[in-house]
Amino acid sequence: MIGIDWGSSGFRAYRLSDDGILRERRTAASGIASLTPTDYAVVLQQQIGDWLRDEPTTPVLLSGMVGSRQGWREAAYAECPAGMSELAANFCPVDLGGGRQADIVPGLSCRGANGNPDVMRGEETQIFGLDLPAEATLCMPGTHSKHVQIRDGRIAGFATAMTGEVFALLKSHGLIAAMLAPADSKPEELDTAAFESGLALSGQPGGLLHHIFSVRTRRLFNELSAEAAAHYLSGILIGHELRATAWAGQVVIVGTGGLAMRYRKAFAFLGIDADVAPEDAAAIGLYRLGQLAARRTP
Amino acid sequence: MIGIDWGSSGFRAYRLSDDGILRERRTAASGIASLTPTDYAVVLQQQIGDWLRDEPTTPVLLSGMVGSRQGWREAAYAECPAGMSELAANFCPVDLGGGRQADIVPGLSCRGANGNPDVMRGEETQIFGLDLPAEATLCMPGTHSKHVQIRDGRIAGFATAMTGEVFALLKSHGLIAAMLAPADSKPEELDTAAFESGLALSGQPGGLLHHIFSVRTRRLFNELSAEAAAHYLSGILIGHELRATAWAGQVVIVGTGGLAMRYRKAFAFLGIDADVAPEDAAAIGLYRLGQLAARRTP
Repeated sequence: MIGIDWGSSGFRAYRLSDDGILRERRTAASGIASLTPTDYAVVLQQQIGDWLRDEPTTPVLLSGMVGSRQGWREAAYAECPAGMSELAANFCPVDLGGGRQADIVPGLSCRGANGNPDVMRGEETQIFGLDLPAEATLCMPGTHSKHVQIRDGRIAGFATAMTGEVFALLKSHGLIAAMLAPADSKPEELDTAAFESGLALSGQPGGLLHHIFSVRTRRLFNELSAEAAAHYLSGILIGHELRATAWAGQVVIVGTGGLAMRYRKAFAFLGIDADVAPEDAAAIGLYRLGQLAARRTP
Repeated sequence: MIGIDWGSSGFRAYRLSDDGILRERRTAASGIASLTPTDYAVVLQQQIGDWLRDEPTTPVLLSGMVGSRQGWREAAYAECPAGMSELAANFCPVDLGGGRQADIVPGLSCRGANGNPDVMRGEETQIFGLDLPAEATLCMPGTHSKHVQIRDGRIAGFATAMTGEVFALLKSHGLIAAMLAPADSKPEELDTAAFESGLALSGQPGGLLHHIFSVRTRRLFNELSAEAAAHYLSGILIGHELRATAWAGQVVIVGTGGLAMRYRKAFAFLGIDADVAPEDAAAIGLYRLGQLAARRTP
């Protein structure tokens, strides 16, 4: 089968054998933010036209923001609690041309304890690609971090924190941006002392809106270097994000590279053991959902 | 005397009689963000050259970001606790040309309970223009809101919350900005129901970074209109700001117009009685500080 994880800023295609072995992967920058509905079939031909020709009958399954209102076609949210079968029952077909069809995995919605809705698209597919215990709490860091409750092997509910987006806004605009070194250091090169100083502050009184002002004042009093300031800010934001959730049961970080390591450090600082999930969960999730749907529609 | 409240984005000049009566005021958009050090004397001549010629010996006193590192000349912060005399003892002279001198009121710094420094410039002058009880907590809303503890008639300490700046960033960039009506409604035309809905959410678990995502999801589920969304967001942010401070003793809002009214509504929603201070506190504070300095230097 062919599985595609198609998000706002990226395109990741996976070619899998019938028994779920990942044969080939391709990535591109063709995120949905730059596309209109008529572009999708064209981009697919450009990126994986050879795969589609080689295997003219293999299923094609897509997940992520491709199924949002701003994507190819809106795949209505399935509601939590949800397992793989609720997702597979709500696939949304799209036309690849030449009489061929693909399916989009629906996103998930839930209601928080405060009554507000919350949503995810793409993360649900990653989650079902993991080999999880029946009970766990997942942390999926990113532009919009997701904290996900797994109960009885299903997604019971989740909450989104806009940590990554707020970090990017504060780094790019306004007073705090002017306090930072012009060249960002890479997330891999974490300044642990500055990061942990921010994590520690996030546990003090005063609130997030007050805490972030200390990036300005500590720079002003030469108590923080321009290079360390972004790491300190990151610690403040991630600290506030993680302290606001009750981390019950086994905690699993679903993320990659420097960001996953940064979150693991943050959990450790807060005294919480967190494992990092293996990569390629999206490919495995797409495979498993594809298998389930194939069994349902003989 | 002539008093000038010169901030990042605005210039407000006051002409006062020897007994403190406000005779005339002028405002201009010549904030310090658009000026270099050699511009200041020129702008003063453009804006109030006639006042300076009419009264060639009257004292000229300036307050606000004009005394910052990015302003005319850096006036080192005085430290809290501080009263008027500590400010008057630390005036910083600048040259008006023609052998004439003006003075800049220093800003104030303090150390929070968490060890971080905090700073204000301009607010200290406004505060000493108020007729305050010996013990009070002030809320000075704005781009960078200040919460100020008054003890024995002096400024004991304060904390800054970046509420206004974060609101502006979220309204202008990124996911939440795309959820709002394109034309901002004026702060005077507050949608009270949406504002109070945000205030209520700010008291729920989940944290600010999660709460702001509900602007997106409630719009997505048609539970919030594009017009109401900015008011809801404002309620979330102001609610987080105010709930993070212990409001001891008499609470006084030092602000003007729709923003002061909005904060009064927020305090009322939280069950806290708050008065709104009269306007022109900066002019009166400049006059009082000028009088005190004149008595000190015969």
